[in-house]
Amino acid sequence: MTRAARGRDADRRRRPRRPVRYRLGLAPLLLFGWALVVLARSAAGQAPLPSWNDGPAKQAIVAFVGRVTTPGSPDFVPPAERIATFDNDGTLWSEEPIYVQLAFALDRVRALAPRHPEWKTTQPFRAVLDGDPKTLAASGEQGLLKLIMATHTGMTTEDFAATVTDWLRTARHPRFERPYTDLVYQPMLELLAFLRANGFKTFIVSGGTVEFIRAWAERVYDIPPEQVIGTTFLTRFQVRADSTPVLTREPKIDFVDDGDGKPVGINRFIGRRPILAFGNSDGDLQMLEWTAAGKGARFMGLVHHTDATREWAYDRQSHIGKLDKALDAAQRRGWTVVDMRRDWRVIYPFQR
Amino acid sequence: MTRAARGRDADRRRRPRRPVRYRLGLAPLLLFGWALVVLARSAAGQAPLPSWNDGPAKQAIVAFVGRVTTPGSPDFVPPAERIATFDNDGTLWSEEPIYVQLAFALDRVRALAPRHPEWKTTQPFRAVLDGDPKTLAASGEQGLLKLIMATHTGMTTEDFAATVTDWLRTARHPRFERPYTDLVYQPMLELLAFLRANGFKTFIVSGGTVEFIRAWAERVYDIPPEQVIGTTFLTRFQVRADSTPVLTREPKIDFVDDGDGKPVGINRFIGRRPILAFGNSDGDLQMLEWTAAGKGARFMGLVHHTDATREWAYDRQSHIGKLDKALDAAQRRGWTVVDMRRDWRVIYPFQR
Repeated sequence: MTRAARGRDADRRRRPRRPVRYRLGLAPLLLFGWALVVLARSAAGQAPLPSWNDGPAKQAIVAFVGRVTTPGSPDFVPPAERIATFDNDGTLWSEEPIYVQLAFALDRVRALAPRHPEWKTTQPFRAVLDGDPKTLAASGEQGLLKLIMATHTGMTTEDFAATVTDWLRTARHPRFERPYTDLVYQPMLELLAFLRANGFKTFIVSGGTVEFIRAWAERVYDIPPEQVIGTTFLTRFQVRADSTPVLTREPKIDFVDDGDGKPVGINRFIGRRPILAFGNSDGDLQMLEWTAAGKGARFMGLVHHTDATREWAYDRQSHIGKLDKALDAAQRRGWTVVDMRRDWRVIYPFQR
Repeated sequence: MTRAARGRDADRRRRPRRPVRYRLGLAPLLLFGWALVVLARSAAGQAPLPSWNDGPAKQAIVAFVGRVTTPGSPDFVPPAERIATFDNDGTLWSEEPIYVQLAFALDRVRALAPRHPEWKTTQPFRAVLDGDPKTLAASGEQGLLKLIMATHTGMTTEDFAATVTDWLRTARHPRFERPYTDLVYQPMLELLAFLRANGFKTFIVSGGTVEFIRAWAERVYDIPPEQVIGTTFLTRFQVRADSTPVLTREPKIDFVDDGDGKPVGINRFIGRRPILAFGNSDGDLQMLEWTAAGKGARFMGLVHHTDATREWAYDRQSHIGKLDKALDAAQRRGWTVVDMRRDWRVIYPFQR
């Protein structure tokens, strides 16, 4: 600092301090108040679950979330323990007329057929190529497993994910003629968002294979890959000749995340018991039982497919998403059964 | 509204509006400015990694985090993809003189011995009860596995977690005479917190069994159970006679999360490739290779135990946490090797 500058500085210090006063008109204050209101509104969100009709299901959800998130409430649950698990097929998106993952497998068989001339004479591949659903159905679970193995394994994890992404871009649902990912349930998207806004961590716990779902769950549900639990294939770490390490998918199922497998998968991946779980079929019963058996407030929900007009209607006798024992359990134990026709104002996002 | 009320309201509307003015002295403004500074400071945190000495390791970490978190940087990574994985034994806490999990198993054998009279004559249990480390060591990996099975399985998941919690409360590390969870590395706690403050999601990827670590990882590392990946036992869902559903731990290892298993486990649980990974032994090499092979900026780190005074010094010839091939790989490929003696100002939180 030069002497002159120091002088100026000293001058400034010697000047008598006059209190600085600011004059504000009403307008800035009103603006400030309005900004506060807007901020508060966007923090609180709009009224929750707009695509749910008012009724016992919506009321039960909102009441439960209120109880577990209100500090001082006897049912208060710390955010880290607010684990919510959702089945996928039939709970978050439509599973009719066939599981989307099976539709993918069938399309892949057709796409890969030129490289597999033997499929022309081998079942159940031949049935797929001939468009013969009867023979395909007759091949049973073992037949379907062959299709899944042939189309879901034998490649690296990254190649598989890319194949799923590509397929979703062009494949169309036969009834709605839209991308399959358009057939997610708008009310459930709102429920996922409502839970997350209230400090819940949302997980998918699906009988489907995990990497099929991970390929699109973040984009569609805002659920990151590490929060998707599902059936897994044996995966092998290998270092290629050019030193690139890869993970290859082997044609062997490693873990079936269905029925008894759901609580096992939840324990393995999350290591904490959910306080809210939602399913739609008997394959979800054990997940709901496991959730219900925890201490403190719990919410168990089932989506009941009752809307043949807007979606599908099926339960106890269904070949897919059979809901029989779990429906009895829900009625006996007072779990929330969502009646799709009655409780949902809209089904799909494109119908809003 | 009554006529009278309407009249009062109309009166109010007719009154001339005078602009409301507020007079503020300087003090509130200064206070406001100070509050902003404090807020900014607490948001930015103190200088990061205070227990790390300035040097290439700290600089590499800070530079990497800066690159991947600066919007517009060519290396920018969106928060959802900021996955960081850490080995546990020897990377986040001390693994000498024996793995903590083994210390737990030995103590459990002693505690359970009265219920197992046959252990007095069966190896390796007898060696544990007789305090005969030579025979115990001679029983090799198979012997250790027997001890682990006998002490880690055959109970429900919740009973096991409670046993670990109880044990940690009373068990003391033989050299430091402190709870084992005191022997976590202060610099690594700071690194975990620094990464999380920068939008990273931190995971443990351990060769140890997952439920042993989950019992204390949240309290000690601030890492929730769903972000702990490890070796798993087969677990079975059962409904007891009183209708209580339980998960029981079976004496069968289901997945070994070590070596090749680490990238497999990362893929299975996270489904996304880490951009930062830290280990300390050859068992972490494949995790580091898998991390390094991703596109974009990556950080691979190894903790090198070089401090016989404050902790332990071991690497290529060690019976535990052997660091040989991974050290060569790190030197060849320019990964960050943390020299514990040189790079860490303190080792344990209680030494601060």
